[in-house]
Amino acid sequence: MSATRYTYLGPEGTFTEAALRTLPEAATRELVPMVSVRAALDAVRGGGAAAALVPIENSVEGGVTATLDELAHGEPLMIYREVLLPIAFALLVRPGTRLEDIKTVTGHPVAQPQVRNWLRAHLPDAVWESAASNADGARLVQEGRYDAAFAGEFAAATYGLEPLVAQIHDAENAETRFVLVGRSGRPAAPTGADRTSVVVRMGTDRPGALLELLQEFAVRGVNLMLIQSRPTGTGIGDYCFAMDAEGHVAERRVAEALMGLRRIAPMVRFLGSYPRAGVRPGDVPAPRPGTTDAEFVAAADWLARVQDGRA
Amino acid sequence: MSATRYTYLGPEGTFTEAALRTLPEAATRELVPMVSVRAALDAVRGGGAAAALVPIENSVEGGVTATLDELAHGEPLMIYREVLLPIAFALLVRPGTRLEDIKTVTGHPVAQPQVRNWLRAHLPDAVWESAASNADGARLVQEGRYDAAFAGEFAAATYGLEPLVAQIHDAENAETRFVLVGRSGRPAAPTGADRTSVVVRMGTDRPGALLELLQEFAVRGVNLMLIQSRPTGTGIGDYCFAMDAEGHVAERRVAEALMGLRRIAPMVRFLGSYPRAGVRPGDVPAPRPGTTDAEFVAAADWLARVQDGRA
Amino acid sequence: MSATRYTYLGPEGTFTEAALRTLPEAATRELVPMVSVRAALDAVRGGGAAAALVPIENSVEGGVTATLDELAHGEPLMIYREVLLPIAFALLVRPGTRLEDIKTVTGHPVAQPQVRNWLRAHLPDAVWESAASNADGARLVQEGRYDAAFAGEFAAATYGLEPLVAQIHDAENAETRFVLVGRSGRPAAPTGADRTSVVVRMGTDRPGALLELLQEFAVRGVNLMLIQSRPTGTGIGDYCFAMDAEGHVAERRVAEALMGLRRIAPMVRFLGSYPRAGVRPGDVPAPRPGTTDAEFVAAADWLARVQDGRA
Amino acid sequence: MSATRYTYLGPEGTFTEAALRTLPEAATRELVPMVSVRAALDAVRGGGAAAALVPIENSVEGGVTATLDELAHGEPLMIYREVLLPIAFALLVRPGTRLEDIKTVTGHPVAQPQVRNWLRAHLPDAVWESAASNADGARLVQEGRYDAAFAGEFAAATYGLEPLVAQIHDAENAETRFVLVGRSGRPAAPTGADRTSVVVRMGTDRPGALLELLQEFAVRGVNLMLIQSRPTGTGIGDYCFAMDAEGHVAERRVAEALMGLRRIAPMVRFLGSYPRAGVRPGDVPAPRPGTTDAEFVAAADWLARVQDGRA
Repeated sequence: MSATRYTYLGPEGTFTEAALRTLPEAATRELVPMVSVRAALDAVRGGGAAAALVPIENSVEGGVTATLDELAHGEPLMIYREVLLPIAFALLVRPGTRLEDIKTVTGHPVAQPQVRNWLRAHLPDAVWESAASNADGARLVQEGRYDAAFAGEFAAATYGLEPLVAQIHDAENAETRFVLVGRSGRPAAPTGADRTSVVVRMGTDRPGALLELLQEFAVRGVNLMLIQSRPTGTGIGDYCFAMDAEGHVAERRVAEALMGLRRIAPMVRFLGSYPRAGVRPGDVPAPRPGTTDAEFVAAADWLARVQDGRA
Repeated sequence: MSATRYTYLGPEGTFTEAALRTLPEAATRELVPMVSVRAALDAVRGGGAAAALVPIENSVEGGVTATLDELAHGEPLMIYREVLLPIAFALLVRPGTRLEDIKTVTGHPVAQPQVRNWLRAHLPDAVWESAASNADGARLVQEGRYDAAFAGEFAAATYGLEPLVAQIHDAENAETRFVLVGRSGRPAAPTGADRTSVVVRMGTDRPGALLELLQEFAVRGVNLMLIQSRPTGTGIGDYCFAMDAEGHVAERRVAEALMGLRRIAPMVRFLGSYPRAGVRPGDVPAPRPGTTDAEFVAAADWLARVQDGRA
Repeated sequence: MSATRYTYLGPEGTFTEAALRTLPEAATRELVPMVSVRAALDAVRGGGAAAALVPIENSVEGGVTATLDELAHGEPLMIYREVLLPIAFALLVRPGTRLEDIKTVTGHPVAQPQVRNWLRAHLPDAVWESAASNADGARLVQEGRYDAAFAGEFAAATYGLEPLVAQIHDAENAETRFVLVGRSGRPAAPTGADRTSVVVRMGTDRPGALLELLQEFAVRGVNLMLIQSRPTGTGIGDYCFAMDAEGHVAERRVAEALMGLRRIAPMVRFLGSYPRAGVRPGDVPAPRPGTTDAEFVAAADWLARVQDGRA
Repeated sequence: MSATRYTYLGPEGTFTEAALRTLPEAATRELVPMVSVRAALDAVRGGGAAAALVPIENSVEGGVTATLDELAHGEPLMIYREVLLPIAFALLVRPGTRLEDIKTVTGHPVAQPQVRNWLRAHLPDAVWESAASNADGARLVQEGRYDAAFAGEFAAATYGLEPLVAQIHDAENAETRFVLVGRSGRPAAPTGADRTSVVVRMGTDRPGALLELLQEFAVRGVNLMLIQSRPTGTGIGDYCFAMDAEGHVAERRVAEALMGLRRIAPMVRFLGSYPRAGVRPGDVPAPRPGTTDAEFVAAADWLARVQDGRA
């Protein structure tokens, strides 16, 4: 029954699964690994799953383009939650393997730049070959095809391996942001520390278009947290922008900014307003003076009086 | 009875009276000249008159500061109409006076720069002395105190004078804009070619304040027609701004811009939305794409669907 | 000999003369009162005077349009100094006159709004008539034509009058700013607390022109202190802007902003960079990060290396 | 000898090699395939090659993050040329293979989304497995590991395969942009149709930082062609921006904008000004009025006169 099923970017043992398991409701859901971001999301689109957890941004590798593009195109979906997961790799080996035995290593291509320095220092002669996923790499080690795999430490048990070295990460603070995606519906309730995601497409004939988009946010005091340009598929020079703004669509300043985007852009897709992971309302800077909901309401009341001749 | 009484900046025979008489309803009103802009407006404030016609801007001398300051401070009033009047002076003399007889000329101080070149060319030796108004100057000629007065040709009959020379104006296209001011109430209905006037006060501690004000207009595609800085009376460096924008407060782009001003400025006073004199709806440039009322409504509908989960 | 002659807006006994006498060099100059701002400035243009002191801005009445327009048009002149003078009026009477004897009062039209409240409170029945200047009003009291004149206390001796009441000013902090104007030349040396004045004219066909002007300043971190719109004399709707910016044309951020104006505006007239009166360098806020001269120089050096292939 | 050696993202038979061979000078260079973008660029850094050709942007998949990140970090390099190559795939098979025989297909992961629709229509049951490169996929077909590979048609001969189907591309106008990268030096000469690339890093504490960057370009009339945010590796929320602007650093408006970036951003890296592929000078829109080199020079001359007192 789909209402109890969550898909995720598999296979079992990926960081995505680990991220999904940090959600309390995961304990009561059937968690189904899928072979790709697209497959995970298509299961939601098709009604086969209530939601899908997929990676959207990595502090080392940047935006996950498969996820951004899936959310930007095709049947609309919405983001309801985000999860932040620190990324540290373990070097998984078959029991008994020693560091000096390792001639070949594997892992997801995205893992490689995150462990490159460690490899150079500790296994300078090992040959790297990419696997379809970190978990898949672990499986290939289990099958004997490679000597070691970089994966999450939690994947060791699934594949009968053991972590020879843990907490490997070239970059301090490496982390990945995942989003829980469902069919379009009412946004999550505002919490005071929210993120709003949209995709906006401008035409190619407006060189100042991006500046105009940013001004729609700036004039209402809405801070942009992230902007990613993505191709539209129609040729180099035509882009759409995935943008994350601080705040919730239920807040007036965000709502007015979104309406501004909607008016000037040929396409705006709302991807959701949802609580920020790891941020409490008290950590969020106060809105710029003149942009609180109370000030929006007061200005609207004033305008109504002006229009009615009661100012 | 005040509802039938209009005051104006007198005395009789001024350009203001001439402007007032261009309004159809003037024919059925009691028209009362007042000694100053303040007196004309105070009669409206006090209920002694339904409206007052006062000059607000002259193409040669600029903003009429007395009017701007009266509208910015004190009990609020509103503008309901504007009148544009071409300004050409006649040289009024007692019957029989010839040009070569003229040793002294008079007129309102504002008239002087508008006839300076003419005087230099035709009466280089005549001595100018200012009068309290052009009409007052005509009265002083009638009384024999000066030889000639610059005033509107229409003032000749009132003071028993005759126009020795007509159509005197150093500047081509000299004109004055007058406004019909009443107590605050519902704005005039939109016509498609309207002007909206406000006064805004920013603090002295925000050097970029004016830029912020202009951006509130610009981001909504509202064109500014006029901006005048005026002192607030609290010392050099503290200003308020009288601003005229294209459009009507009943239009969404104007309304949203005004709410924006209201939120960021310590003081905003709405002075009215009213038909532009001498401009027909067809002459007004179309709103920038994305700023028509229809586009505002469509964006608001979209937002409501987004917030309700029906997008 | 003109190099030792300074003109000023007369007659003797005006606030302008008082302001001029605060300048140390005034002690060694021949100070010549003139009948108008234009006359004072034309004496400089014609070589009859080295400089002229004229009022440019009043904290109650705003910009002095005669001065602004004279500087904007005609043969170019430049500002080299400014003087700030607190404005307080004395009620000057013939010796022996008591308050209860006063039936008529006079003064410059600009003085009236600055003493209106005092008059209402202390001489509610006195009749006001305007004089050509405050000093002229004093002369008319001397001649017996009026009972009292509002003027600077320093004017009493000149006209054989005595100050019946001193320190009259409706507004706290009333002050007037005067400028010392000379023929165009090298600007005054920078002091660290300077003001730069320009006049800019945009066409009527660019509704966003003023915003563009302000952005030329804003993007280089130059604060605007004052902006005054003035008619160009060619009809309502065509304006030029007198602008005062913080800083000196010898500073890079100001220089680059002025070049920006010059490129986008059909007309820019530089009116001078000169020390601010009453402000010491330590009182001026530090330039926005990224806009100091040192940062401009460093960026130019970097660019030169980039262009030369040495970056 | 390194001056005659160019590296490229290999292996042989990739689109990168095809792009490289479109450059006239390629005929006289030793072309060396490298296993990664990093390896290709490191050969240049180390002096082992004069230049490297690497992909930087694909109209379907977007920015090539490996290239963007390599250019943003490490020892500085510069771009001297760009090449645009239309991307169409051929389905390469061992001689004799028929469409109905194909059970497994391979290719670079980036190829998959570009042929997905074609696969669904023509080989709905074939299983896709990713290869390290398109050329590598061809090799694996040669070795018999897969039945067919998507690659450039030009790769067929290298691997003893034949193109069963040619001109496969889901998206119309699919193309990839490649850049020829060398050690830092003097930029290529301006052609009138140039692109300037920079990487800019702002801090995390300035929410409006991106808007400020864009305004540095906008106020000088420089059009942005592309903006890509990339993580800095220090945690989610800290980004740098790869930006491409129209024009050449030898042009004044571009130079001034770059100096503006340099002053406000903690880090700006100039990546080169180079001719745009496929665009002739006549195709480039004229600079916005006020931003031509001639206007910059005229404004600088005017400023010099102002500063010298000769205006």
